[in-house]
Amino acid sequence: MDRLLFCFPGNEALGENLLNRPGYRIGKAILRRFPDRESYVRILTDVKGENVDILCTLHQPDDKLMMIYFFSQLAKQLGAKSVRLIAPYLAYMRQDKEFHPGEAVTSDLFAQLLGSWIDELITIDPHLHRHPRLSDIYDIPTTVLHAGPLIVDHIRKHLSKPVLIGPDEESKQWVAAIASQVGCDFLVLKKERLGDRTVRIDVPDAPKFRDHSPVLVDDIISTGHTMMETAGHLNEHGIPPPVCIGVHAVFAGNAWKEMLAAGIRHIVTTNTIAHPSNAIDVSELLTSRLFSQGFRSGDHVE
Amino acid sequence: MDRLLFCFPGNEALGENLLNRPGYRIGKAILRRFPDRESYVRILTDVKGENVDILCTLHQPDDKLMMIYFFSQLAKQLGAKSVRLIAPYLAYMRQDKEFHPGEAVTSDLFAQLLGSWIDELITIDPHLHRHPRLSDIYDIPTTVLHAGPLIVDHIRKHLSKPVLIGPDEESKQWVAAIASQVGCDFLVLKKERLGDRTVRIDVPDAPKFRDHSPVLVDDIISTGHTMMETAGHLNEHGIPPPVCIGVHAVFAGNAWKEMLAAGIRHIVTTNTIAHPSNAIDVSELLTSRLFSQGFRSGDHVE
Repeated sequence: MDRLLFCFPGNEALGENLLNRPGYRIGKAILRRFPDRESYVRILTDVKGENVDILCTLHQPDDKLMMIYFFSQLAKQLGAKSVRLIAPYLAYMRQDKEFHPGEAVTSDLFAQLLGSWIDELITIDPHLHRHPRLSDIYDIPTTVLHAGPLIVDHIRKHLSKPVLIGPDEESKQWVAAIASQVGCDFLVLKKERLGDRTVRIDVPDAPKFRDHSPVLVDDIISTGHTMMETAGHLNEHGIPPPVCIGVHAVFAGNAWKEMLAAGIRHIVTTNTIAHPSNAIDVSELLTSRLFSQGFRSGDHVE
Repeated sequence: MDRLLFCFPGNEALGENLLNRPGYRIGKAILRRFPDRESYVRILTDVKGENVDILCTLHQPDDKLMMIYFFSQLAKQLGAKSVRLIAPYLAYMRQDKEFHPGEAVTSDLFAQLLGSWIDELITIDPHLHRHPRLSDIYDIPTTVLHAGPLIVDHIRKHLSKPVLIGPDEESKQWVAAIASQVGCDFLVLKKERLGDRTVRIDVPDAPKFRDHSPVLVDDIISTGHTMMETAGHLNEHGIPPPVCIGVHAVFAGNAWKEMLAAGIRHIVTTNTIAHPSNAIDVSELLTSRLFSQGFRSGDHVE
């Protein structure tokens, strides 16, 4: 059975791509603000007995959540069979621990709240760290999709002589994994402690890669600080400006422009968050999984 | 027993006034945004066994609610005995009915959500319309305070020869009531239908009030359209620019500046929402009731 898709404000581009694929009918709603900035929600399409999907990515989440709450409750009142949230970028995944006494563990609190509004959650590459699986914090069924294969594909198609760059030793394992999928080399920066306060960054085998296209990959590009620092170290060692690839184009403040000004050659992101840097479309990844058999069984579709 | 007061961002001025009155100790917390605009909440004061008050007014509410949610849940986790929200301005009181099919009745949905986070709610002059009492939509104990006496007092002290203006017949009753408390005249504008599409606004007894200080009073000043129109009609009849008094300084967009440019003499508001037009302090009103015996019994402290 096909589903009704409601695109929330700011998700129109990805929403159109989804609606061009089989399985979806368009759901119509009026979602707007009153002059005093309160949310207004009106569902125009009959949702009675329907499986309803909300498409709403969750960067800068606080201002978006009331509309999701109102919409999901209203859809249920109007007889929707199920309400599923497709949040290509999932918020509140970073504060997953009380780092200092008295801190709110917002990953868990957020999961409880969102899970009380919707029946099911689908997302792409959430920032899982101390919680290895979304089901550790979400009680509702969740599906995690991975943009990795799309990024590998992008590197293969668009970059000649790529070399994957890992900013530190911790990144080695997954940088090596991507490089092996691309079929290219990788290079991991090394911290050398020269004194109590002095650290020298070494770029092993630098001369070998001076005619390569260095590639930095991360799940979220937020402030871009690590990427900019890494680009600086590469530059000091005669390696050309890197291409930076991120799954989620969060870009805190002016990060995008700062990165371009700081000697990043090119920034590429997927369209989980609408942004001028989007160059990799996740709509096929989403629909190929959204209508498969497996998605209700829980976490981590591989 | 005294209470712990936590002032949320933007409520510092009123918060200081409250802390200068007996009954409160200051609660310390870090309430801020990460660069990606997610909320961070850390409670520094020990709240175990304490009655906790959050001071957070709710204009432009959507962006404020996650912090209230995280804070209230965290306070409970840390052993707070009760968490009460003082929202001098209460949001989502206008859409109290399905005006068109498929609309979310956000007044009710919002009350359910907020009521599931906190133990008690205190507010000033909520926009009660189709729901005559807050307890019609809130399951938790609520206290409603009224700024009317403060406004009457302000008019008496600051305006010579006031005349209360009602913009239409519907406003007559309460305009008359305020005028009688001030001890002054009132004047209600009259709509005269001249044809299918033509309406003439009459200002009865206009010549009598040309040396008076006309006063317009409303609970919320949002776009200010009605007040500006009314000022225009007064002007056409030779009555001087009015003083506009509102309980809640919502001011959608540039409404405040537009009103001043449109020939309003002066705009006066209470400090339920921090704004340059604030001239009436509600802190005594709040504390006189917050620590009284009656406030737990429910609605509408008169």
